[in-house]
Amino acid sequence: MYGVILAGGSGSRLWPLSRELYPKQLLKLNSKKSLLESTFLRLREIMPQNHIFSITNTKHAVDVKTQLSNIYTDALVLAEPCAKNTAPAIAVSAKYIIDKNGDDIILVVPSDHLVKDVKAFKESILEGEKLANEGYIVTFGVKPDSYQTGYGYIKTSKLKNDAFGLKVDEFKEKPDYATAKKYVESGNYFWNAGIFMFKASVFIKALEEYAPDIFKILKEFDFKKQDTIDYTIFEKMPSISVDYAVMERAKNIALIPLKSDWDDVGCWEAIYGTNAKDKEGNVKIGNVMCEDCKDSLFYGSERLVAGVGVEGVVVVETSDAIMVCKKDNTQDVKKIFDKLKEMKDEAHLIHTTVYRPWGYYTNLGRGDGYLTKLISVSPKGQLSLQSHDHRSEHWVVLSGTARVTLGDKVFMLKAGSSIDIPVQAKHSLANPYSEELKIIEVQKGDKLSEDDIIRYKDIYGRVKA
Amino acid sequence: MYGVILAGGSGSRLWPLSRELYPKQLLKLNSKKSLLESTFLRLREIMPQNHIFSITNTKHAVDVKTQLSNIYTDALVLAEPCAKNTAPAIAVSAKYIIDKNGDDIILVVPSDHLVKDVKAFKESILEGEKLANEGYIVTFGVKPDSYQTGYGYIKTSKLKNDAFGLKVDEFKEKPDYATAKKYVESGNYFWNAGIFMFKASVFIKALEEYAPDIFKILKEFDFKKQDTIDYTIFEKMPSISVDYAVMERAKNIALIPLKSDWDDVGCWEAIYGTNAKDKEGNVKIGNVMCEDCKDSLFYGSERLVAGVGVEGVVVVETSDAIMVCKKDNTQDVKKIFDKLKEMKDEAHLIHTTVYRPWGYYTNLGRGDGYLTKLISVSPKGQLSLQSHDHRSEHWVVLSGTARVTLGDKVFMLKAGSSIDIPVQAKHSLANPYSEELKIIEVQKGDKLSEDDIIRYKDIYGRVKA
Repeated sequence: MYGVILAGGSGSRLWPLSRELYPKQLLKLNSKKSLLESTFLRLREIMPQNHIFSITNTKHAVDVKTQLSNIYTDALVLAEPCAKNTAPAIAVSAKYIIDKNGDDIILVVPSDHLVKDVKAFKESILEGEKLANEGYIVTFGVKPDSYQTGYGYIKTSKLKNDAFGLKVDEFKEKPDYATAKKYVESGNYFWNAGIFMFKASVFIKALEEYAPDIFKILKEFDFKKQDTIDYTIFEKMPSISVDYAVMERAKNIALIPLKSDWDDVGCWEAIYGTNAKDKEGNVKIGNVMCEDCKDSLFYGSERLVAGVGVEGVVVVETSDAIMVCKKDNTQDVKKIFDKLKEMKDEAHLIHTTVYRPWGYYTNLGRGDGYLTKLISVSPKGQLSLQSHDHRSEHWVVLSGTARVTLGDKVFMLKAGSSIDIPVQAKHSLANPYSEELKIIEVQKGDKLSEDDIIRYKDIYGRVKA
Repeated sequence: MYGVILAGGSGSRLWPLSRELYPKQLLKLNSKKSLLESTFLRLREIMPQNHIFSITNTKHAVDVKTQLSNIYTDALVLAEPCAKNTAPAIAVSAKYIIDKNGDDIILVVPSDHLVKDVKAFKESILEGEKLANEGYIVTFGVKPDSYQTGYGYIKTSKLKNDAFGLKVDEFKEKPDYATAKKYVESGNYFWNAGIFMFKASVFIKALEEYAPDIFKILKEFDFKKQDTIDYTIFEKMPSISVDYAVMERAKNIALIPLKSDWDDVGCWEAIYGTNAKDKEGNVKIGNVMCEDCKDSLFYGSERLVAGVGVEGVVVVETSDAIMVCKKDNTQDVKKIFDKLKEMKDEAHLIHTTVYRPWGYYTNLGRGDGYLTKLISVSPKGQLSLQSHDHRSEHWVVLSGTARVTLGDKVFMLKAGSSIDIPVQAKHSLANPYSEELKIIEVQKGDKLSEDDIIRYKDIYGRVKA
């Protein structure tokens, strides 16, 4: 069996904790592992880790790869050169597996859902495997326990004499409340969890029949000869979801009711729901103080968050944005995200702290002609060999020891030392030791932006050949 | 006439904007002037500016002096060497004025109240002056327009044939709601605004009669010979309010109804009340975005503050603490402040940005053995000549030009330059030009605290002889 983790995502619904460049699956919400890492670990209970790969868009590929490398150094990450929704992503994944390994069963899962009971999850997957081997395209449904209007529903009926599976009659879009109530009370509707399973060849055949445009373009890829997804081919794909392209049209769809818990953590209310509460019903994460508060979520990432007398609210603090929301309006957080995007405010896009393969940096302050950052380089981490056309940099080592390359010289700088990096000088910063390296970087220049960077060499593959 | 501005204050009720070391009167809440500055400017409409002086505790004296110096360079600030409530502070002020200038009328006002209609305020004060000249101790009362339980009340009756004043029958502590309603509906109760006026000699005489312990200690001061309040004398004073020591006991108390507007801005609800609202009833200060919010106050000082679907809340963002409070619970903010104080959390005490006579600094980040600050030195500003026993410093000039004294050498450092200040080296930083000077300071050492400082010379008088 092979596993495909769909690791795209816009980062809008858990703003300000998620950002366009740091979406939900990368967040560590309920544990020390991110949702992506937990998804990988969950699949590893079912299949060998070298059978699991992730597909994501280019802008998240480095972050996805960095997180997964902590679990399995050779974790395979495929980067989609442009965004084309789920059907092309899954189609390419199926073709990739067939070309590299031959026909086999493929399990497709989202990267940003929360499942705690891995044992029950595995049982359901193994039940699905039987049906997939019989030629079914299997979807996994969640038995509803409330009249949710935020999920798609799947209508089912009995599937011949099969012990586990159900026949899928119809996929239903997100319903209104009255319709959702009717669905749930009828007893034969399930929530669409976006988890699928099929023989690669069966899925490709379904594409040929129901999505011939995708099928035709897909044939142009030959992953026996190539390892990446070619832009000129992929960008011809239609942008379409797998539900719409295949699932709603094909006849051989079966459903396995998921035995495990499941949460798509799609909004802040879900984060509230999946965390432990104090006796007043408050979830407190970070440095939080409450006085007479009830049924609220307080999330502090850096600063003190104090609540006084509030009830049913969500308060989220990040280094550059604070969000206060009524708990049953958390779907509307997306509206703020969209407004920010429209205004081209960077707060929708990035955090003040930005994670990189070599560690992270935090913007400390910006003014006319300068920008100050705290840079943390992980043990053995190394920034690319680079130069800047518009800025000089000044580094002060706070802790650890830096190996600085400047032009053709290499210096070792201990805590307390500092160095100037002139405009256009080739330079690199590395941490060869096992202690974290921290430096303050003061950038000076007329243009201080992340894109003023020419990379010459990079141990994380960020230099194009 | 002389004016005394009572400029103490704990900073608890407008936390996190106010702090113990940066209380309400120093805040610029509704205008470009702080409440203290506005109070000084208001009194200057009534008396010469060299007749106005402020009395405050030692820990606020530099900040009070710095703010008032912007209006009047020689503004007199008396520092109480320890906290003893209002009666000793006013007693010492009266003695000071008698000793320096002879008997005269004194107007005593709090430094942290908001009065917009200065003309009407002046009219009431001039009415009070007549009564004070007749030997009354005059208090100024506010005609209630709601059943406030947060203020003291004053019961009045007719004062012989006087055109303006009323006879004070009784001072009442903060009442419960039912009692407040009864007071207000009776028509002869006023709010106690904490503004007093008297002939210095009349007040001293009242002390002799009703607070003989204060009177006795007061005689030990001789401000003909000294300019500061002696600790060994002042610390013998009882800690008691002027209301309790004199006003509630003396017979010759009159009340002038204040004609102007008045607000003690005693809680966040008051800040909401005194600011302009959008059509949904929201007050937005700073970088604020709202989606479907009502009747709320959003105060952002540095970061983006986003509200979604909330109603009747107060959200205050500062560089190190976020506070979210139900609008009609804002009196309870004090409870968080008190808890922090109990826990010895610095968040009750100071801001991440700290104002100094020479400009300000902002703590950017702190870690094991280092602390980074952004330091801004105002034009002509100068830090004291100082040294540190436990830390070295590294300065990077961001903008402007620094004059750095290090040992017996003086350097001029332009933007982009940097310098190391070794442990125990005598040094000073000055901005001799008219452009703001900004530097990044990286402190390194085993003990990084504000009290590791030996001052040798200071243009703001912060070196004890």
